Amino acid sequence: MAESWSFLDTVESNFRPLVVIELAKGTKEETIEWFMKRIVDKKADGGAQLLIKPLIMENGHENIYLVGASHLRLLLGAETVGLVKECNDNSMRTFTYSSRKTFKDFADDNHNFLTMAECQYIIKHELDNLRAKNEKMIPGYPQAKLYPGKSIVRRLLTSGILVQIFPLHDREELKKLRHSWYGRVRVGYQPLDDIRCYFGETIALYFSFLEYFTFALIPMAVIGIPYYVFAWEDYDKYVMFATFNLLWSTVILEVWKRICAILTYRWGTLLMKRQFEEPRPGFHGVLGINPVTGREEPVYSSIKRQLRIYLVSLPFVCLCLYFSLYVMMIYFDLEQWALDYDKENESNFSSLMLYVPSIIYAVVIEVMNRIYRYAAEFLTSWENHRLESSYQNHLILKVLVFNFLNCFASLFYIAFVLFDMKLLRQSLATLLITSQILNQFAESLLPYWLQKRHNKRMKKCTYSQKTNTNLSLAEQVNMEKEMGTYLGTFDDYLELFLQFGYVSLFSCVYPLAAVFAVLNNITEIYSDALKMCRVYKRPFAEPTANIGVWQLAFETMSVISVVTNCMLIGMSPQVDALFPDSKMDLVLTVAFVEHLLLAIKFIMAFVIPDKPRDIQMKLAKLEFESLEALKQQ
Amino acid sequence: MAESWSFLDTVESNFRPLVVIELAKGTKEETIEWFMKRIVDKKADGGAQLLIKPLIMENGHENIYLVGASHLRLLLGAETVGLVKECNDNSMRTFTYSSRKTFKDFADDNHNFLTMAECQYIIKHELDNLRAKNEKMIPGYPQAKLYPGKSIVRRLLTSGILVQIFPLHDREELKKLRHSWYGRVRVGYQPLDDIRCYFGETIALYFSFLEYFTFALIPMAVIGIPYYVFAWEDYDKYVMFATFNLLWSTVILEVWKRICAILTYRWGTLLMKRQFEEPRPGFHGVLGINPVTGREEPVYSSIKRQLRIYLVSLPFVCLCLYFSLYVMMIYFDLEQWALDYDKENESNFSSLMLYVPSIIYAVVIEVMNRIYRYAAEFLTSWENHRLESSYQNHLILKVLVFNFLNCFASLFYIAFVLFDMKLLRQSLATLLITSQILNQFAESLLPYWLQKRHNKRMKKCTYSQKTNTNLSLAEQVNMEKEMGTYLGTFDDYLELFLQFGYVSLFSCVYPLAAVFAVLNNITEIYSDALKMCRVYKRPFAEPTANIGVWQLAFETMSVISVVTNCMLIGMSPQVDALFPDSKMDLVLTVAFVEHLLLAIKFIMAFVIPDKPRDIQMKLAKLEFESLEALKQQ
Repeated sequence: MAESWSFLDTVESNFRPLVVIELAKGTKEETIEWFMKRIVDKKADGGAQLLIKPLIMENGHENIYLVGASHLRLLLGAETVGLVKECNDNSMRTFTYSSRKTFKDFADDNHNFLTMAECQYIIKHELDNLRAKNEKMIPGYPQAKLYPGKSIVRRLLTSGILVQIFPLHDREELKKLRHSWYGRVRVGYQPLDDIRCYFGETIALYFSFLEYFTFALIPMAVIGIPYYVFAWEDYDKYVMFATFNLLWSTVILEVWKRICAILTYRWGTLLMKRQFEEPRPGFHGVLGINPVTGREEPVYSSIKRQLRIYLVSLPFVCLCLYFSLYVMMIYFDLEQWALDYDKENESNFSSLMLYVPSIIYAVVIEVMNRIYRYAAEFLTSWENHRLESSYQNHLILKVLVFNFLNCFASLFYIAFVLFDMKLLRQSLATLLITSQILNQFAESLLPYWLQKRHNKRMKKCTYSQKTNTNLSLAEQVNMEKEMGTYLGTFDDYLELFLQFGYVSLFSCVYPLAAVFAVLNNITEIYSDALKMCRVYKRPFAEPTANIGVWQLAFETMSVISVVTNCMLIGMSPQVDALFPDSKMDLVLTVAFVEHLLLAIKFIMAFVIPDKPRDIQMKLAKLEFESLEALKQQ
Repeated sequence: MAESWSFLDTVESNFRPLVVIELAKGTKEETIEWFMKRIVDKKADGGAQLLIKPLIMENGHENIYLVGASHLRLLLGAETVGLVKECNDNSMRTFTYSSRKTFKDFADDNHNFLTMAECQYIIKHELDNLRAKNEKMIPGYPQAKLYPGKSIVRRLLTSGILVQIFPLHDREELKKLRHSWYGRVRVGYQPLDDIRCYFGETIALYFSFLEYFTFALIPMAVIGIPYYVFAWEDYDKYVMFATFNLLWSTVILEVWKRICAILTYRWGTLLMKRQFEEPRPGFHGVLGINPVTGREEPVYSSIKRQLRIYLVSLPFVCLCLYFSLYVMMIYFDLEQWALDYDKENESNFSSLMLYVPSIIYAVVIEVMNRIYRYAAEFLTSWENHRLESSYQNHLILKVLVFNFLNCFASLFYIAFVLFDMKLLRQSLATLLITSQILNQFAESLLPYWLQKRHNKRMKKCTYSQKTNTNLSLAEQVNMEKEMGTYLGTFDDYLELFLQFGYVSLFSCVYPLAAVFAVLNNITEIYSDALKMCRVYKRPFAEPTANIGVWQLAFETMSVISVVTNCMLIGMSPQVDALFPDSKMDLVLTVAFVEHLLLAIKFIMAFVIPDKPRDIQMKLAKLEFESLEALKQQ
């Protein structure tokens, strides 16, 4: 590889480019000079003490810079970000430079002790934490104000001088990863540890969850198949299936927490201390003193934010929900019209027309979800949350509620207002399958195709034909900087969440849903992997210890599904026939069973420990050691 | 006071007795000598570095010792236990000896910087952590085995050589506290900070909760009175009352968490790091290596414990629950017999007889609860839990389930099997009032009376008559060592928990319950205060940050009460009359309202932050500072 890095001739041999910085075209010379100096300056002088080199492009562009760092600097940075690594005695410990010799695989000349993703995370952390000293503005841009303690990179980004920062792909590693991940058709697990090393913990955890969830659905799918094959319609079999499903969904969510603990312990993020959260880049307000840090930063009244949330966002969300219900009613009118049409004509075409309203509705739902998503992002950004986590939580809440209603309202309506089980089954199947196909297409295949076309055109224009792996660094950077940016795992989790809804909410009506979910998820693993490796820029690694608010979302869904399944079973004619004299008794029995199931669910969630015993022991051991160390002081 | 401490003549003037150790009569000389030496020995030699003096009693007893410590020793001990104190800038920080000057009210000659309760807690901690070095047994008692790291005091206690350790009352302080607490009849808050200084955080938090809970019940009581006075029976008023109650009970439990955070922040325990938990004294097993600490200690297989829990304890608890239900059925037979008897005779006596079964049942319930309590303690101890906290949790769970069934089963039976609202109201009133009277009597007044009689006899036998406040130290110790031991806040919380059940489970049937609860709690504050100050030995202070598992218990009760109240309202004839055509619609509506209320409850619990904003800010500030300090390193 090294011989293809065109600039290496002019540079000390230990410079390994990790992160790419693209400045806007025509950025003033003095700004660039000042920014470079701040990046290279010693820590003691308030700099980041990193290495930076301009990338000389063949077409003469000069606005791209490569950032790297010396091995020692990266190790010190690993200590700053609180990285947790494995020790020689197989325990996980927070890395410190002074205790470096006790860590597994550490050697002063082993430059692979830190993975490339970790190095890039460290550089991003250091760049984000490069703060203004007594500059009042960015040199050359008087309108881009600075104040002591303001993150320089964030100001450069918000004022448009800095176009983007992204980590570089490692083409050798990526090729290996692609091969072991989806390069050959095989039955087996994903190379999760390799994914984590390359893409970081957040993405690896998503793929772990996707894989785990797929495996967890298999029992449901296997039990569901005979219902379809033998057309079982006996109520007792459905009750059995639904009961199994409800308890099973509780078990899988609890077991996931344990698996998540095992994975994140191995990856070190379970032990990683939460870093202090900086205000998010978009946060604005009057300059004031943060009471927590004592630093100067924008301050925005919490009351104003609450007013925006409750007086604007909440009514808007309610309006959207109402609109979504209105669209649903139109769908039912269409459905009725198609039925009437079919009755009148009884042709092949008219019976095909029966499926048209469902398909249109599924497409409309997808479109509405995407439009609403933009509105929700705009509104949440306008609410001006100080922390990225708070922004994310409010966004997720807004999007979840709308998506839930949008996807499931029609099914609820069919089930509990129209009482039409046949239509419910048909709608469920259409919605599930249409949305899966649409998603797979819109999410991976379309961007992949666009990307490929774009690359081809680029190559034709600029460079002579080369094999893909033999690109020069300049070519590689030029190609990667044009790739789309991966916006996080939100959409991927949302898709799984809605799928979980289709599988569990009406499981006793359509046992085949789990089969489709399993099939979709198997292809989803491949298409998501393709998306990560081929379509998008490499994302920065993001350490995380769990799947956060999604755990809560999935658990809430599984509680709602207990209610819906009990109602469905109570409404089935077979159960109805068991209580010929009194409908009262029927309803009371169903309500009793529902409460019993809910109670069992909560007790199970309470009794199953969130962490396996050996992880608990390891954590206790670490805690004990740190207490003992404190005593020794 | 000082002139009455009979031994002070022979001792350095800075010795302040804090803790009393009572050894068994006839303990061997060599054992005493060894134990004394270990207590006095320097920390570096594995001792506790405390001061100890024998107490010369007038009647020649020589088995009582007083433990104290130098001021410096106590300050170092405060650092060891991780005490959190207020700084000069009003923030709370973990005390360290090196930063002592920054703490509020600290001066080298201010011996009141640490409260007496804190000093006693430190001494207890140091004594508990006095560990065997290479002794194989307690000198003089070959059967009392020791191994390196075994707590000496615990072994002395389990082998009966050490009779008891208890902290000494401070008669001056106690007098002041009694006066401001319950000495005069007045309207106002309890002196919570003084209680905390004298008895420690666990007990102060119980009294805070008792007071808070009483105030929180007042709105319910006020709204409940007109229902009784005007004999309102309209369903809409009951629905209003029940709805208010359900939401109110959610709010008060959430607000309590916030108040608890405010209190424990002020007291420093919110910030206190959890100490590593030692095995509880009763824990036994084969000597092995603890994988967490690496220390030698008894090891007991977790599988064996699980077997004991699921194969013995669980069936036993179920059997007891069955027995309790059986007793309940006997009560209903008695009740029927009393009704028949009244019908036959129609005399004053026979109508009085109507109340007899309820009263007998209330007494039987109390007796069964107390017997079961012993069985539960025995079983939980036999389960051989390693940690005190795990022992407590299993005990609380056992006792809670049984008490819940025992107290409320008859009411559930009356409400949902007999459908007799009049009987329900009558039983509820009888049970509530009887149990409150019994409790007040058994818990405080009876022990107080016994204690008083005992003291009088003691004084008559041994000493000449003196006024109570003018006792010599020897007399004081002699009196206190005979007092009962306060066994913790378990029973007090349990009483409140059951009371909360009476108030909330059937609130729409008997709105007056809250009034009785408020009245009871006002006297309860006084009788519990009396109990703490007069009846029992002073307990060791126990730092705590919350009311632990009781928060969960109260929240569970409030969820159950949503279900019961909805059912009760659904069964009322007025609501029945609203749905003349279809009982189905009635039940479905009730079920819908119930689910809606539960959803609102969970959303409210989720939305209301557990800590007030200013406490959150203070905690964030501390976290930020410690992260910054780490970076500076």
